Amino acid sequence: MISAGIIGASGYTGAELLRILAQHPEMEVTLATAREYSGERISALYPSLGEFYDDEFRTYEENEVKTECDAVFIGLPHGESMKIVPGLMATDKKIVDLSADFRFDEPAVYEKWYGTPHSCPELLREAVYGLPESNRKKIAGAQLVANPGCYPTAVALGLLPLVKVSLVAGTVFIDAKSGVSGAGRKLTLQTHFPQLADGVVPYAVSGHRHQPEMELLLAGASGHSIFPVVFVPHLVPMNRGILCTMYVTLNDGMGDSEIWDLYNDAYSAEAFVHMLKAGECPQTKAVQGSNNCHIGLAAVLDGKGLIVMSAIDNLVKGASGQAVQNMNLLCGLPEDTGLLVPGLFP
Amino acid sequence: MISAGIIGASGYTGAELLRILAQHPEMEVTLATAREYSGERISALYPSLGEFYDDEFRTYEENEVKTECDAVFIGLPHGESMKIVPGLMATDKKIVDLSADFRFDEPAVYEKWYGTPHSCPELLREAVYGLPESNRKKIAGAQLVANPGCYPTAVALGLLPLVKVSLVAGTVFIDAKSGVSGAGRKLTLQTHFPQLADGVVPYAVSGHRHQPEMELLLAGASGHSIFPVVFVPHLVPMNRGILCTMYVTLNDGMGDSEIWDLYNDAYSAEAFVHMLKAGECPQTKAVQGSNNCHIGLAAVLDGKGLIVMSAIDNLVKGASGQAVQNMNLLCGLPEDTGLLVPGLFP
Amino acid sequence: MISAGIIGASGYTGAELLRILAQHPEMEVTLATAREYSGERISALYPSLGEFYDDEFRTYEENEVKTECDAVFIGLPHGESMKIVPGLMATDKKIVDLSADFRFDEPAVYEKWYGTPHSCPELLREAVYGLPESNRKKIAGAQLVANPGCYPTAVALGLLPLVKVSLVAGTVFIDAKSGVSGAGRKLTLQTHFPQLADGVVPYAVSGHRHQPEMELLLAGASGHSIFPVVFVPHLVPMNRGILCTMYVTLNDGMGDSEIWDLYNDAYSAEAFVHMLKAGECPQTKAVQGSNNCHIGLAAVLDGKGLIVMSAIDNLVKGASGQAVQNMNLLCGLPEDTGLLVPGLFP
Amino acid sequence: MISAGIIGASGYTGAELLRILAQHPEMEVTLATAREYSGERISALYPSLGEFYDDEFRTYEENEVKTECDAVFIGLPHGESMKIVPGLMATDKKIVDLSADFRFDEPAVYEKWYGTPHSCPELLREAVYGLPESNRKKIAGAQLVANPGCYPTAVALGLLPLVKVSLVAGTVFIDAKSGVSGAGRKLTLQTHFPQLADGVVPYAVSGHRHQPEMELLLAGASGHSIFPVVFVPHLVPMNRGILCTMYVTLNDGMGDSEIWDLYNDAYSAEAFVHMLKAGECPQTKAVQGSNNCHIGLAAVLDGKGLIVMSAIDNLVKGASGQAVQNMNLLCGLPEDTGLLVPGLFP
Repeated sequence: MISAGIIGASGYTGAELLRILAQHPEMEVTLATAREYSGERISALYPSLGEFYDDEFRTYEENEVKTECDAVFIGLPHGESMKIVPGLMATDKKIVDLSADFRFDEPAVYEKWYGTPHSCPELLREAVYGLPESNRKKIAGAQLVANPGCYPTAVALGLLPLVKVSLVAGTVFIDAKSGVSGAGRKLTLQTHFPQLADGVVPYAVSGHRHQPEMELLLAGASGHSIFPVVFVPHLVPMNRGILCTMYVTLNDGMGDSEIWDLYNDAYSAEAFVHMLKAGECPQTKAVQGSNNCHIGLAAVLDGKGLIVMSAIDNLVKGASGQAVQNMNLLCGLPEDTGLLVPGLFP
Repeated sequence: MISAGIIGASGYTGAELLRILAQHPEMEVTLATAREYSGERISALYPSLGEFYDDEFRTYEENEVKTECDAVFIGLPHGESMKIVPGLMATDKKIVDLSADFRFDEPAVYEKWYGTPHSCPELLREAVYGLPESNRKKIAGAQLVANPGCYPTAVALGLLPLVKVSLVAGTVFIDAKSGVSGAGRKLTLQTHFPQLADGVVPYAVSGHRHQPEMELLLAGASGHSIFPVVFVPHLVPMNRGILCTMYVTLNDGMGDSEIWDLYNDAYSAEAFVHMLKAGECPQTKAVQGSNNCHIGLAAVLDGKGLIVMSAIDNLVKGASGQAVQNMNLLCGLPEDTGLLVPGLFP
Repeated sequence: MISAGIIGASGYTGAELLRILAQHPEMEVTLATAREYSGERISALYPSLGEFYDDEFRTYEENEVKTECDAVFIGLPHGESMKIVPGLMATDKKIVDLSADFRFDEPAVYEKWYGTPHSCPELLREAVYGLPESNRKKIAGAQLVANPGCYPTAVALGLLPLVKVSLVAGTVFIDAKSGVSGAGRKLTLQTHFPQLADGVVPYAVSGHRHQPEMELLLAGASGHSIFPVVFVPHLVPMNRGILCTMYVTLNDGMGDSEIWDLYNDAYSAEAFVHMLKAGECPQTKAVQGSNNCHIGLAAVLDGKGLIVMSAIDNLVKGASGQAVQNMNLLCGLPEDTGLLVPGLFP
Repeated sequence: MISAGIIGASGYTGAELLRILAQHPEMEVTLATAREYSGERISALYPSLGEFYDDEFRTYEENEVKTECDAVFIGLPHGESMKIVPGLMATDKKIVDLSADFRFDEPAVYEKWYGTPHSCPELLREAVYGLPESNRKKIAGAQLVANPGCYPTAVALGLLPLVKVSLVAGTVFIDAKSGVSGAGRKLTLQTHFPQLADGVVPYAVSGHRHQPEMELLLAGASGHSIFPVVFVPHLVPMNRGILCTMYVTLNDGMGDSEIWDLYNDAYSAEAFVHMLKAGECPQTKAVQGSNNCHIGLAAVLDGKGLIVMSAIDNLVKGASGQAVQNMNLLCGLPEDTGLLVPGLFP
């Protein structure tokens, strides 16, 4: 049994790690920290976990983590992770960080979008970006994994098969719809129930922090130095889920059935990425609570355009489920251990 | 006082006409028909109207309409309106038809998308398309107005200022999010609460009936023979509202502030179209229950791209409110009579 | 035209006053204050009001109110109203206070439930409790009206006909379901979208501040010194609306049809209280956005028990609509001026 | 591995059985029937199950069930189960029937409430009512279990500790709030999204079919011949969950802490029933997707009254989870096999 610690466990991604690991046959949570709630019962914040955890949240003590954990998940806000990771890297702990602190190779990109200098830039190249469907071998050999953002995950799984064979011409327009848990547990006017329920609204139109992450990811896969996209996220009155509707202009050279083959080949061996049939559209409800990504395709503009639709649960494949998938790889377990769970519908 | 009849009054657009006209100072409903509910109290179907209507739904009798009504709103399904319009045109009744039956000049287009031949094609050229912000003079001189579809209204108000001056290069990608009342009162699995609530789903990706309507409308305004768009509607778990996020590639020749001027000039005198400030995004909740359209703009791709966002209430500006706006014009009333109502928020 | 000021206009009840008064033919808003948002455009907080108000929120200045307003609505939090009311009472201004500050005769009751001593207890007996269906004559002669709480309004309208004729035996159990706007615009974890959406939860089970208000109201009507109830409110994932399901044990002496007669007699002349037919149940959606109260009855326990169900919109009949109804009375206008509006459905 | 068949698998309880059994370590689904969808892929109806089932729904053939299944779950509508159960009882198959067909001892009660005579009344006494927390020993020795209704489960778990020691005086008033999946997958106007979303409504006030079931259950536990309750269910705009708020008048003889002891003693050894702490209220979201029941208590009326609040997921503990719990007992497995799963929150 692998002992897991969750640092920053009171937010939604932390609670989701607690939920997923309660079902994991090879990993158990031995320590959960949350500065603000130190000494409070986990179940007081999350009654849904009451039957599984009777512990209290603790404050972070590096020594306790070193003593009690083999595997460390970090659910701290951006800027906080990089304060504790260097200390943990000196040990043999396996680390999956859910923040953005280790997602970029270049500290300048981090600084530009997250507004603060990076305090341990030397670790950026040691960290591996944790999208297993793209680079599971590198992940398996790493000590530190930067877990992707929710939007970049949905976008990358939807576009990588196209991008890798240079089928995309011009700008991709990405219209994303997100459930409100993606904005976290922090109170804001925008996520106050009466401001949001029974309506829909775009946000961060002038630039979302996940945009450089997805652009760099797609640039890397395409072999180009840049891969600009237009990305507009929307808040939808639902708890969980991301649906990305992506509008792609295609280069010549491939017909509809060849594109389907491309995707089916890319994903037929994947446990968590599931191609829908022609004519079917993904819906967020079908992946609710699961680590799955559903992808649908539709040809438009007489085959010169393609609509790619991808759906994930932002808290699972978009955060904590993918983090467990990465940790499984780090620990030499089968990648899908503890994660083969159907979505909760309706 | 103008006597108004509502033919096909049991659906959501019919009920919305009853609601709006209950507030109208110059028009009153004298007759409401609904074949399926004939003899039932209006308030049994719509308790919200109980304080305002104690009548029953009737069956349609042409003679009664001729005797009791000056103005006729038709809320029948597609294919049904064209059966009764010819008889009414022989009188001097003013008619606003909310179906698609008279929206196209060419019967072939109607037949292709609505699957049935047109039974009175000679009336197609007599009917005027009822988007007052675009052609209010023609409307004022007409007898029969074809009320626009909800999506085409939101799209046209968002794009017409650009299209008229030929600023659009290439294909416009339109990502639309709709409340569920847009699908009507008819029961379907897709609109069954547990299938839809707390999730989001695209639909009709391979072609929605409103697509030719918006393409023809934009083509007409642009002076081109065709104006193809890519249009993907989504169902969002909310009762009312349409939000269109439109991705436009721009021709050269205009900077950001000139584009804002273009829109502000187009709409400053309009009672129902409201430009938001730079940095603000429209939300459906802000127009809920009102005849307003809110429009926001955001430049992208270093000024080579533009995101146009428009929000309306699909049942008001997208249907019954616009129908009353049109009827006001037909009857020589100020266009905004009975319609200057703020949205219901939250 | 009566000039109205809204003190504390940035909360939901303030915004609702702005919305309702935008439609009022005899009253117009000349001044809206909001300490926290002073200098900000009203439409920046409430885009739904953008077409109707281009003013900014101001800070409260007694002199400005005295100069610019005939009628004053106070939407300040509890404890704040009583600071400004004495100064305004020295003028001839008509005042409707939406807080609890003037709802009780006894300062001790206020102090017990609101946790602070009353600073102007001498005004408590001058203030009139503003439930027009119960005491419109007293209201019409007053200068200061204490607008009722949302729950007490729904409860009183549902129970008063029974209570007045002493038909109630034993304790009434009141199960209330409220939309989230009732909790106001202030951010709390409980009203954070992901904590609440797609679920239901009781709250304040050990005692809600509205309980003494409803008990005193019912005691007054019954002629008894006390009228204890058991009251459990619940938060329901909806924006607006209160539904009270009230479980009453009846004294002997009246059959089912006599009870219906009792209610029909009580309310047949009321503009805003509407008895449903036997077998019909009220729903919050049918009164959304309107000042109406819908009431349904069902006999149980072989006629020894009665279920009374009442539905209102908590922001309208439960707050701002009732405030306008009261102000109409204070100003000598017909009570329903500006308030005869159907509910928004769906 | 136990082979399980699901007869009537296309409804929500059927799909929930498929979901739960996908995680069950000792049971696997070998056969799923659905007359209406015979030959269609399971994943076409339920994309959430696509990664787990690539079978098609079949039509019911008794021989196939006999050959392919050890355990049979029946998710057919009332009146349909009793047509196939006699044939299966002749074998050694273990049967859990989720309909009401075998819940009553007396065929007259069934006939009164379900409107049709019982076709195999001789089996009524052979069937065991499947509430394991109340009668797990009898269940373990049975061949046929009648799985309880969702409301009776929530009510019984909340009231049984009180009822068994005769603490209840007078009528219990039960106010139930249900998610919409409880009404099933069948299309109705009441469950059409726009009729229901963003509102709350009581229904079946004059008598719900689950009322006799809960009354008989409570009567049995109390030792009285009858145990009348007043029961009012409400539809809440959420997918899953039942919250029962129960208003109890107490006999003398027990203080607050003794009542807590009573409940804690009753449930401390139960895997799925969880007492909250004093001051905590159950919420449906905390049990979403899990087989758990959360119970909270609050004393009122100076200890003479008690509010009991219970929350379950109507599709899990209220239907399919409890069915698996029962089947585990029938098959000699630990009762909680495959069911120890935390709720999905948010």
